[in-house]
Amino acid sequence: MIADTSSIAGYTIYREEANDAAPDLSKARLAHPLDQLSIEEIRVASGLIRQYASPKTLKFNCLTLREPKKNEYAAFRSGSAPRPDRRAFAIIIEKETAQVAEVVVNLATSSVETWKPVTDVAPTLTLEDLDICETVARADPRVIEACREIGITDMSKVFIDAWAVGFDHRWGLDRRLQQGIIYYRNSANDNQYAHPLDFSVIVDTEKEVVLAVDIRRVNGERVKVPLEEHNYMPEFIGDTFKNKLKPISITQPEGVSFQLIGNELLWAGYRMHIGFNYREGIVISDVRMHDQYEGRERSLFNRISVVEMVVPYGNPDPPHHRKHAFDVGEYGTGLMTNSLKLGCDCKGVIHYLDAVMATGSGEPAVVKNAICIHEEDNGLLYKHTDYRDGTVTSARDRKLIISQIITAANYEYAFYHIFTLDGTYKLEIKLTGMLNTYCMAPSESAAPYGTEVAPAINAHNHQHIFSLRVDPEIDGSNNSILQSDAMMSEAPLGSAENPYGNGFYCKKTPLRTSKEAATSYKHETSRSWDIINPNRLNPSAKKPVAYKILNNNCPSILAKPGSMVRKRAAFAQESLWVVPYKDYELFPAGDYVCQSGGDEGHPHNSTIVDWVARDEPIENTDIVCYIQFGLTHFPRTEDFPVMPAEPVSVMLRASNFFQKNPALWVPPSAVVKDDVSRYASDLVNDLKAQCCAGSSGSSKL
Amino acid sequence: MIADTSSIAGYTIYREEANDAAPDLSKARLAHPLDQLSIEEIRVASGLIRQYASPKTLKFNCLTLREPKKNEYAAFRSGSAPRPDRRAFAIIIEKETAQVAEVVVNLATSSVETWKPVTDVAPTLTLEDLDICETVARADPRVIEACREIGITDMSKVFIDAWAVGFDHRWGLDRRLQQGIIYYRNSANDNQYAHPLDFSVIVDTEKEVVLAVDIRRVNGERVKVPLEEHNYMPEFIGDTFKNKLKPISITQPEGVSFQLIGNELLWAGYRMHIGFNYREGIVISDVRMHDQYEGRERSLFNRISVVEMVVPYGNPDPPHHRKHAFDVGEYGTGLMTNSLKLGCDCKGVIHYLDAVMATGSGEPAVVKNAICIHEEDNGLLYKHTDYRDGTVTSARDRKLIISQIITAANYEYAFYHIFTLDGTYKLEIKLTGMLNTYCMAPSESAAPYGTEVAPAINAHNHQHIFSLRVDPEIDGSNNSILQSDAMMSEAPLGSAENPYGNGFYCKKTPLRTSKEAATSYKHETSRSWDIINPNRLNPSAKKPVAYKILNNNCPSILAKPGSMVRKRAAFAQESLWVVPYKDYELFPAGDYVCQSGGDEGHPHNSTIVDWVARDEPIENTDIVCYIQFGLTHFPRTEDFPVMPAEPVSVMLRASNFFQKNPALWVPPSAVVKDDVSRYASDLVNDLKAQCCAGSSGSSKL
Repeated sequence: MIADTSSIAGYTIYREEANDAAPDLSKARLAHPLDQLSIEEIRVASGLIRQYASPKTLKFNCLTLREPKKNEYAAFRSGSAPRPDRRAFAIIIEKETAQVAEVVVNLATSSVETWKPVTDVAPTLTLEDLDICETVARADPRVIEACREIGITDMSKVFIDAWAVGFDHRWGLDRRLQQGIIYYRNSANDNQYAHPLDFSVIVDTEKEVVLAVDIRRVNGERVKVPLEEHNYMPEFIGDTFKNKLKPISITQPEGVSFQLIGNELLWAGYRMHIGFNYREGIVISDVRMHDQYEGRERSLFNRISVVEMVVPYGNPDPPHHRKHAFDVGEYGTGLMTNSLKLGCDCKGVIHYLDAVMATGSGEPAVVKNAICIHEEDNGLLYKHTDYRDGTVTSARDRKLIISQIITAANYEYAFYHIFTLDGTYKLEIKLTGMLNTYCMAPSESAAPYGTEVAPAINAHNHQHIFSLRVDPEIDGSNNSILQSDAMMSEAPLGSAENPYGNGFYCKKTPLRTSKEAATSYKHETSRSWDIINPNRLNPSAKKPVAYKILNNNCPSILAKPGSMVRKRAAFAQESLWVVPYKDYELFPAGDYVCQSGGDEGHPHNSTIVDWVARDEPIENTDIVCYIQFGLTHFPRTEDFPVMPAEPVSVMLRASNFFQKNPALWVPPSAVVKDDVSRYASDLVNDLKAQCCAGSSGSSKL
Repeated sequence: MIADTSSIAGYTIYREEANDAAPDLSKARLAHPLDQLSIEEIRVASGLIRQYASPKTLKFNCLTLREPKKNEYAAFRSGSAPRPDRRAFAIIIEKETAQVAEVVVNLATSSVETWKPVTDVAPTLTLEDLDICETVARADPRVIEACREIGITDMSKVFIDAWAVGFDHRWGLDRRLQQGIIYYRNSANDNQYAHPLDFSVIVDTEKEVVLAVDIRRVNGERVKVPLEEHNYMPEFIGDTFKNKLKPISITQPEGVSFQLIGNELLWAGYRMHIGFNYREGIVISDVRMHDQYEGRERSLFNRISVVEMVVPYGNPDPPHHRKHAFDVGEYGTGLMTNSLKLGCDCKGVIHYLDAVMATGSGEPAVVKNAICIHEEDNGLLYKHTDYRDGTVTSARDRKLIISQIITAANYEYAFYHIFTLDGTYKLEIKLTGMLNTYCMAPSESAAPYGTEVAPAINAHNHQHIFSLRVDPEIDGSNNSILQSDAMMSEAPLGSAENPYGNGFYCKKTPLRTSKEAATSYKHETSRSWDIINPNRLNPSAKKPVAYKILNNNCPSILAKPGSMVRKRAAFAQESLWVVPYKDYELFPAGDYVCQSGGDEGHPHNSTIVDWVARDEPIENTDIVCYIQFGLTHFPRTEDFPVMPAEPVSVMLRASNFFQKNPALWVPPSAVVKDDVSRYASDLVNDLKAQCCAGSSGSSKL
């Protein structure tokens, strides 16, 4: 059933037992249950679906791996059940009618297992969908007239960025809508974000028609397009400083320290599976680590991915209230991913994996080099000097980084999933690319809802709030959450327990249900959260083994209570949500984010609000954490015309999980006995000698 | 007067005007006014002081550069005044009497300018002072007896870490005190922190006697020393994993991109002076940046240094209330600095500077390679892909890092002053080394004030709070502070101003006096602070040019109000303090931190509390910011026996300071036109070709 993929670039033949002395070649063609659909699997799946639906004509909104149910996979992993059947999942739109259905195909039995029509939803906008908006709008007579009115007659210089509509009460869910945001370019590579136009359009994706051309007038007048050029590409920049920076070369003459067996990645005691899909982009599953002290492999996380994000803009003037992009749910961080190039985005020895997705017609489509895997030096891992005799031991840390970069129209987001030698997982996201901009009339001021980043160009205040879904597996599948708050001792100053008043401790509050676990960061107590396994105690610390969530970059959404934006992006209201695990419950703003109203109780589009409303117990059970983090961005002139990368991150760190520092095995970079550190004075004689040798007789004082 | 230092390693001859076509050799021997005292200057200064005090015998507690007064230096820099005289500053202790005096020597006139006796203060403990504690205590009969009682008879295996006493009400300021914390080693390189003893000593530094041996008994019994070994040095660790990590080589075949002219450092448009002293360690002065848009050099910071830190421990049982090390003020981060080695602490091409300090006898002392200057790759500077045609431009960022590492008995702190190409300054401190530990009786529990990191070893809760002093010079010397808070629009949802409720803005609150500026981070509003120059507007943004303080890693001190610890470390109560600039007002916990009581109004030892109490205006004037940041550390078993480096940082970032992204000059690393990013589907045909070539006929589906 599975194609021989051995010759496809970026893929290695999957072998189930890497450590087998003689690999079992009969298994060589079996995909890992979490591997992306292969090119052939996509062909087969779309063929089966088309056949099933015939004579209807279908548009494949998505066609992706249907991951096995968790218990099915776990049973297979433990050897107690057979390999789960490979399955595909598709969302299809019936052409003309715009009926939506969710389809599951069993690739092992070559059959459509389920075909479930879903209503009152608008599926993700694919890149093909987005293209329609620009093509249709550019040709629309009202758009041409709106351009002509402000002096633009060459429509080949007009560019229309397609966005999800956000919400627009003029239309309901019977139409799939987009908004087009309009710019001008003076030449092919001119930065269009320096020339925003004063109107926007609404387009019907399926009917391929412009529904509205919304022109904003200031005191009854059109706003002129700012024509001053602000560019960053080399053709516009002189090369005055070209030789100012000498190259920094990073090489790995002996190769990398990681190993890929199919899509299973092994590095420095870690083992994990790297997956990818059109919506979440990178998915890291089944993360385990070899524990040198306990002599066994221990599970850390069942699944890690970025499942949603929202970029709400803070300018209240219509049509800007419509700007609040959900880049995962509305567009797919898989679909928007860049093909990466060595030297351009990462340095050192890079291993790439391709992304395999599907087109609207159900054909396989590959983004080459979509996932970058590489190592980086990470500075000091540890250092200690014995100050008595100057003995120094230090070791260097390094990172394993699994990354992708997406282009979401103007912005780019670089996602770096980072593992370090001390057992830490960190997701760092770098924000770069272009600010979304709007033109200003001379009578207008950008403040307080934006910054005039260049004359007559307003970059609006906005936030970027990401949702990292972590399905933890802290030394086993049953976990709990403790909230940790740094607190002064309650015992009064002068009391027997706290005579000098210096006592402080970490208050641990068990979060027992999903409602209790809906919590936010608290600066006053340096709040963190421990994901514990209550069934396993650290033998020394006598505390449950844990991984700690460190997340203090987590602004709450600033749209007002009751607003549509806040309702649609309800996930962005708290730093943490915890719910019991349920198969295929993944997306906190709903499976169908486009045009969603965020209404509770939607039959086909439940959100984190619904899941938390169940208020189920989350103690000593299989739980899932949604960790929100990000930043509030008040644009600066320095962010224009291209934005210096701004990093934001969240971290999960071992906390009494290992019996000792898990990186003691790392060979020290130097063991030095050096008396210099200790006594500066010991060097005086040595120095005198040098000084006198060199400046012979010149010490004239 | 100034020695010819041309032959001294690590020093380059200072040339005043680097850009002179022909260097003026008559000036070649002049030190920069902010250079450390040279070896010869130290000799001269100590000679003059000894001569002046004769026949008294002196101990030099410190002997360091007396920096010129700010206006004197500024006038010299602008060319309107002559070069300031080189001066030395010493704190001397008269032997036997223990009288303390502050002395200023003018090296140009070879004269002692001031000799000011100071009372009710205890000067810094030098490394020589600290050595006394161990030597004296190890030989003390009561100490020997206390060891014998728990079975330790070989005193060569007993090690005593000397600490500042903190406070101990049994003695006043007439004695210079230390406390000794006692450990056992089973072999020369055994980790003593695995074997803490159950008693401590108090030593008089000047009389060189043990004043008290404080033995803690639990239920009347001594606590056994834990003898289990927990080591990290290679001789104790197997090499099972030795070849698991392949080398990562970082080279700069064309050399570095920075230039040192004497101690002035030039890099990528930045220019700054690198100084160093026994107390603050690295001092970065006169930081300026060439502005490509305005075609002029613009000042950023007059002076940057870490002026204090405190590590309060949270275990309330005596004697642990005495543990709250002020590593800058009590010991000196200059004196404790490591001599660094290439490859061990940093990678790439390193340039080192030596530190020149003085011994107790007034002799010059050099720590070779005390300051490390190097560049590092910093990943993406920016990236943007035009999704329509796949045109990609991206550039790489890099860091200039000026660093030092100190050993403070058990702990190490690595200080990295980092500048990046986008105009950002970041101080990152990595904490590593050894946890401070204490032994436990079987009846005791480490919770809630510590963690049992290994059997019977208690590592106490503690905090690390640093004070970064930034004397800003944001485009000129007169600056102000605005507090920035991200706020929802006050206009109600549905109002004309905020119809959809999405409006939010940055509320700017001018902090007008020092009392108003005593502020802390607020998570709810993502608070930051702008250091603005109210006299210069950004022409586009029409806002004052600014640098923004980003500081959300700033726990407040957790010792209770009224406690001695909180009083002594009053600086640690707020994230930010701002006062008007005053010459030689530097240290927020006082010039004399050892044994300080933190009392307000001390005639020779004022603190930030006194300075803020003046409540002076801080608007449009020469101001100084004290920025507190750090972390609260509840030890984990993973931190033992050596702690994986934990980073903490604070950042100052240009905010409408430059007219555009200041790094546009950086050559892009790649300009690629790549259709792959845009349309996955474009690749299908290409892929088909590959697929069929390789798997010829095997697509059996």
